[in-house]
Amino acid sequence: MAILEREGSVVLQYHPAAGFYPLREWLAQRHDAAPEAVLVSNGSLQIEEFLTQLLTSPGDVVLVERPSYDRAITIFRRAGARVLGVPLESDGFDVGALENLAKREKPKFFYIIPDFQNPTGVTTSLAKRERLVELAERYDFWVLEDNPYRDLRYFGGELPTVFSLHSEKVLYLSSFSKVLSPGMRVGYLMGPEPLVQQLAKIAEDTYVSPNMIGQGVAYEYCRRGWLGPNIDRLREVYRPRLEGLASALEEYLAEARWTKPEGGFFIGVYLPPEMDTSLLRIRARDMGVVLSDGRGFFPESDGHLFLRLPFCALSVEEIREGIARIGSLANTMAIDISGRG
Amino acid sequence: MAILEREGSVVLQYHPAAGFYPLREWLAQRHDAAPEAVLVSNGSLQIEEFLTQLLTSPGDVVLVERPSYDRAITIFRRAGARVLGVPLESDGFDVGALENLAKREKPKFFYIIPDFQNPTGVTTSLAKRERLVELAERYDFWVLEDNPYRDLRYFGGELPTVFSLHSEKVLYLSSFSKVLSPGMRVGYLMGPEPLVQQLAKIAEDTYVSPNMIGQGVAYEYCRRGWLGPNIDRLREVYRPRLEGLASALEEYLAEARWTKPEGGFFIGVYLPPEMDTSLLRIRARDMGVVLSDGRGFFPESDGHLFLRLPFCALSVEEIREGIARIGSLANTMAIDISGRG
Repeated sequence: MAILEREGSVVLQYHPAAGFYPLREWLAQRHDAAPEAVLVSNGSLQIEEFLTQLLTSPGDVVLVERPSYDRAITIFRRAGARVLGVPLESDGFDVGALENLAKREKPKFFYIIPDFQNPTGVTTSLAKRERLVELAERYDFWVLEDNPYRDLRYFGGELPTVFSLHSEKVLYLSSFSKVLSPGMRVGYLMGPEPLVQQLAKIAEDTYVSPNMIGQGVAYEYCRRGWLGPNIDRLREVYRPRLEGLASALEEYLAEARWTKPEGGFFIGVYLPPEMDTSLLRIRARDMGVVLSDGRGFFPESDGHLFLRLPFCALSVEEIREGIARIGSLANTMAIDISGRG
Repeated sequence: MAILEREGSVVLQYHPAAGFYPLREWLAQRHDAAPEAVLVSNGSLQIEEFLTQLLTSPGDVVLVERPSYDRAITIFRRAGARVLGVPLESDGFDVGALENLAKREKPKFFYIIPDFQNPTGVTTSLAKRERLVELAERYDFWVLEDNPYRDLRYFGGELPTVFSLHSEKVLYLSSFSKVLSPGMRVGYLMGPEPLVQQLAKIAEDTYVSPNMIGQGVAYEYCRRGWLGPNIDRLREVYRPRLEGLASALEEYLAEARWTKPEGGFFIGVYLPPEMDTSLLRIRARDMGVVLSDGRGFFPESDGHLFLRLPFCALSVEEIREGIARIGSLANTMAIDISGRG
């Protein structure tokens, strides 16, 4: 592999904990930042762990969208943070709810996935992005902008990242997992340089230096100009799958409520109250459809009607077949339950 | 690279958090264990972090040799553990001190580097290894056996690992950093399967899956039989450097006290009381010799007379020159100080 021939003596040695410098430079240029404002680590979840260590003490409040990415909620809770949810609407977080929570709870940060959110597929509007920065500055909390799906837009026009709105309160997180390879474990953060230095110290104390081979491979891939064409190819593959899932939902689960995403990996579906997803999941599994537990995405205990439907790893035919099965099950269950009453 | 051609679809995807299965199998066979008893992670320090999360709560006592590896002490302290030292003798830990501390402090674990210890180079005798297992079982603490230098033996006969003495209380840690490449960040643990499963859950919650490219490369290297010849080559390179350092110490620092190691990376040197190493470090740096702060290796505040001297990355000439400079400085300082009194 070219990177081992050209840079083997670097990537095979211990290395500064903030990551492979040429990759930091490449990322910095892409986001109009300084290389010293970039930290590259073993995936972005690992960086969220370091951020939680740095920014919170046990008992502190942190905010997430409701629903949000289950692994992030787990990381925050593991460090002893109190995780509260800001309701998510079809154009992003509920602004009034965020302001109330910010006032009352003095959160350390608000974790948000503004583009094609995991697990709902929702995109935060430009107006809400601008409002978010104002509120973060007024109430003095950090914004953790996690944006790994951003390049996978299948419809509509790009919105600016929250980070690009130039606030010192925004930390930008992303990774190569969705656009290159998840097994590589290369994620990165952009933020104020003093904070990057503090994170690099925590990183060094944790693993000495990050996985340099993965970072070297990612850099070489980017340097050669292969990332853009790969993203174009992924968009071509995923777009019809999103369309297929959306039309299958309209056909087989007409009672469900969801927002059509403009990109990403997921549609998040709310079922009507008579269709408890715990039972649905058990029956669906017997029919060969594995659904993840919607409750994991909700910091409070109210996710029992929620289904996260991933569409990228399945063919359109598989998607239609799966939704048809869920639809027939859901209808039977609705009859069961109304029959009981 | 061959591993990407043969197993690219595996190593480039998300993967079980316990690591790349073929590598777990290879390591298991080498240590007479089951593959399910092996966890592979991003370096062994990261595993020490997971172990600290799993086995300790803030305020718990953990034991280390005194002195011990500074980064391990930092990891344990960061999690809120109280780190106490068991004095290290020329054949390993002080047995009586360990027993007293085990009785009185009820430690969660004892962290020990039995072969060519970092930072002293000391090797724990067989008698003490056997005694350690008895004490761990009697007083119910875990033994964290960290053994990354084991294969780098330049003199004398191999002793059994503590892990091979077949106690359920011993966890074995090692890595490929010293025998293949540190930049790869591939470390591993062997221990009881239920504990490995718990660690794998913590690992998954932290980084989803470990760095699979590094693990794939390490496996391919091992599978091809390249590890043994590489270790032989390293021994040939490092042995004369150890000899060179030992003879330079005899010549230029005759007042110092140290144990000649049978392998590894370091000789640990205790200077006579009149030669404070803080001042020595400052003066040595001005002369182009960078010494690490000995106090970092001591959990209590008594490392000011200790120097860790690494010999592997320097030529014999560089080693002799460096020790000659330290020797001349140390002698001047001794005169300075006695001049003051």
